[in-house]
Amino acid sequence: MTDINAILDVADKGLEQSLDRLFDLVRIPSISTDPAYKGECRKAAERIVADLSDLGFSASLRDTPGHPMVVAHFEPKGAQGDVPRFLFYGHYDVQPPDPLEKWTTPPFAPEKRTGKDGVVRLYGRGTADDKGQLMTFVEAMRAWIKSAGSLPVRVTILIEGEEESGSPSLVPFLKENKAELACDAAFVCDTSMWDAKTPAITTRLRGMVKDEITITGPRIDLHSGAYGGPAANPIRILSKLLSKLHDKNGKVTIPGFYEGVGELSKDVKQQWQKLKFSETKFLKEVGLSVPAGEKGRGVLEQIWARPTAEVNGIWGGYTGAGTKTVIPSQAHAKLTFRLVGKQNPQKILKAFRAFAKAEVPKDCKIEFAPYGAGSPPSEIPVTSSLIRKSAKALKDEWGRETALVGSGGSIPIVRFFKDILGMDSVLIGFGLNDDALHSPNEKYNLSSFHKGIRSWVRVLGELAK
Amino acid sequence: MTDINAILDVADKGLEQSLDRLFDLVRIPSISTDPAYKGECRKAAERIVADLSDLGFSASLRDTPGHPMVVAHFEPKGAQGDVPRFLFYGHYDVQPPDPLEKWTTPPFAPEKRTGKDGVVRLYGRGTADDKGQLMTFVEAMRAWIKSAGSLPVRVTILIEGEEESGSPSLVPFLKENKAELACDAAFVCDTSMWDAKTPAITTRLRGMVKDEITITGPRIDLHSGAYGGPAANPIRILSKLLSKLHDKNGKVTIPGFYEGVGELSKDVKQQWQKLKFSETKFLKEVGLSVPAGEKGRGVLEQIWARPTAEVNGIWGGYTGAGTKTVIPSQAHAKLTFRLVGKQNPQKILKAFRAFAKAEVPKDCKIEFAPYGAGSPPSEIPVTSSLIRKSAKALKDEWGRETALVGSGGSIPIVRFFKDILGMDSVLIGFGLNDDALHSPNEKYNLSSFHKGIRSWVRVLGELAK
Repeated sequence: MTDINAILDVADKGLEQSLDRLFDLVRIPSISTDPAYKGECRKAAERIVADLSDLGFSASLRDTPGHPMVVAHFEPKGAQGDVPRFLFYGHYDVQPPDPLEKWTTPPFAPEKRTGKDGVVRLYGRGTADDKGQLMTFVEAMRAWIKSAGSLPVRVTILIEGEEESGSPSLVPFLKENKAELACDAAFVCDTSMWDAKTPAITTRLRGMVKDEITITGPRIDLHSGAYGGPAANPIRILSKLLSKLHDKNGKVTIPGFYEGVGELSKDVKQQWQKLKFSETKFLKEVGLSVPAGEKGRGVLEQIWARPTAEVNGIWGGYTGAGTKTVIPSQAHAKLTFRLVGKQNPQKILKAFRAFAKAEVPKDCKIEFAPYGAGSPPSEIPVTSSLIRKSAKALKDEWGRETALVGSGGSIPIVRFFKDILGMDSVLIGFGLNDDALHSPNEKYNLSSFHKGIRSWVRVLGELAK
Repeated sequence: MTDINAILDVADKGLEQSLDRLFDLVRIPSISTDPAYKGECRKAAERIVADLSDLGFSASLRDTPGHPMVVAHFEPKGAQGDVPRFLFYGHYDVQPPDPLEKWTTPPFAPEKRTGKDGVVRLYGRGTADDKGQLMTFVEAMRAWIKSAGSLPVRVTILIEGEEESGSPSLVPFLKENKAELACDAAFVCDTSMWDAKTPAITTRLRGMVKDEITITGPRIDLHSGAYGGPAANPIRILSKLLSKLHDKNGKVTIPGFYEGVGELSKDVKQQWQKLKFSETKFLKEVGLSVPAGEKGRGVLEQIWARPTAEVNGIWGGYTGAGTKTVIPSQAHAKLTFRLVGKQNPQKILKAFRAFAKAEVPKDCKIEFAPYGAGSPPSEIPVTSSLIRKSAKALKDEWGRETALVGSGGSIPIVRFFKDILGMDSVLIGFGLNDDALHSPNEKYNLSSFHKGIRSWVRVLGELAK
């Protein structure tokens, strides 16, 4: 049996070199959104290809209509047919560094600094998002290979270069290379810890489906004096419709909306309670104090495990300065439904539209703008062996129970991996809330980097068991 | 006693000259909104001053910061102290004629044409609005003076030149010349007949008060995935608030809203029923078919005699193309309340604001943008002698009962006359719905002009009784 401590020891001893390699990567301004940095993006990809090739990966740079992908495979020595294969995902592109004048040190001249609090931090654009994070698994694999001569499982690495600019080439690339990329499961390293001391795995993501409605009343805008009273006002109809979406307890009233929405298991409830999440602090940060969701459910549950119907935008009539006494012809709203459990995006959309149509008087019209099929919610059972093994590895490293958390939003890559490659994703990352992603003075704690590497060393070890 | 028929005869015989004078006035492009026509506006005013002076009025052109006013007084020969004085109002300015290419004949080259339907019409910008209308009372006075040697009552004429551009000089002018302009009552000649055969007096106008609300939830726009559920959505709060403004019968629910709103008298109801107003046609013209106002009340009553709460505009969140998954920080709406009876604009505003505040969760904020004091409704009792006399005169001329109508909108001049000069206004005009006011090919029927002159001859006669 492999001695994990020996591998961790190699990782520890190689930390300075690991840092050098991270800093070399950070020095390349691989800003994907700015065409001026096209060459730099390629350079970053080439560097990773070279690095992984050195490690014994069969690595290649793969051109796309945008920035290139890095794909690398590792076949363990003497691997039998049933050795599982896992995909590790990260992205080498970064956000633009503006406003430059707000950086203490230049964004592409990475620097290690110790704060007054004694914490050592790595500053530079991409130190966290996502160069620092992706290098945690690369360096962990290096320690494994250096110490044990191989990785304990089959590994495919996919590093894209367009994550910060909408990943336009990703879906076609996954489709074209389905056979090559499909693995037993994926590890995505682009998320955060629960807090600086508590590791986290994101096991559930809400799904989503969007809609836009337009209600037409009179065929033209009317004078509110000449027509006010008898003329139907589409803003009034829309307001009424939207106000009926929730009952007084904050539950969505669309018939059938909660089909497939389960209750949290006792285990999950207990686990979340242990997180000591402060609802007050969470709301206070955005200027609120009263939880607005379903009554009787905590904020974490509302975000991670309950569906929503939200209006993202509304408009109609006169919206300029001053006043104009019109009864408008039309009123519009954009909506998003966040989904959980077994909710089906298309069924939800259909149910909403039937609900909405019923609210419109017969001489008015309602139209819907299609925004695609939506994405179903995803959830890996916390009892799955993948989660169990990963959580144990993280707990071993950090000395604390791993937080099995949810995410209220959708992470597209997870959806693509599931839909196109048919595999679940385990989201493990070592970022912290104060990393200043996309902002000046982005940083990654040295402990995130160091213990992140060590965490992956352990995860790889567990995966082999 | 004066022989009205003799005066009408003079008016009939002078019709061609009356038309010449109207056309001379129409030929002056007195477009008040365009500074290039400043000189033309003055020319129109000067022409009216000269004309009224010739008639024996003490007429003067009065400079304002904008276009000049025409003020003229007539003192009947041998008038005793108790002869009443009436103000006659019109405006000499006109709307721009664009789009020019849509005019059959040039806008400022007035022309009399007989249609295929045998109806004779006077084409040109201002033939109806308001040069044709104001010339009906000027020409009627000419007939009186020519035939009887005087007018039977004291008359003050006020013709402004900024009605089509917001009347910026009017209120200061009325205030500065209060003593000179205050009369027993005003006649405003800028409205329409009920139909081509039925004369009308507008005896009631709805009042109005406006408001704008802004609801603030989170202090910044939030991601609807990361916050959807617990975060208050101001669009949802606004929708709920607006949806509560009306009950299921279309009644406004603001406490105290209907204080001072009376029921129609039997007389008025009967009179309106006789108008044979087609609700179906009225709604169909604007693409509707279901009356949306208070249940159990007819469309005319809803517009003329019932108050409303209308949303004129709404906006919040993302309103561009595509979607953006935000929970916005703010949502806004603009509202207008149309008032009747003894409703007090400030009380209504206060009641609405209290109602609105109660709908907002304690961690959210509601703000109101002030849009002035509003205007109370105005109503002249149909039993007043002024209405009785005017209605009789019109009936004598047109051979049909005069329609005593309302107006759903507010006519500012009526408000100003009441507030500043302390007098009621009687609105009598001879326009028709198809006059194309503000549009290409504006016209005034010859019958409107001719019988309009004759109507005023009779009204003046009745006023003297």
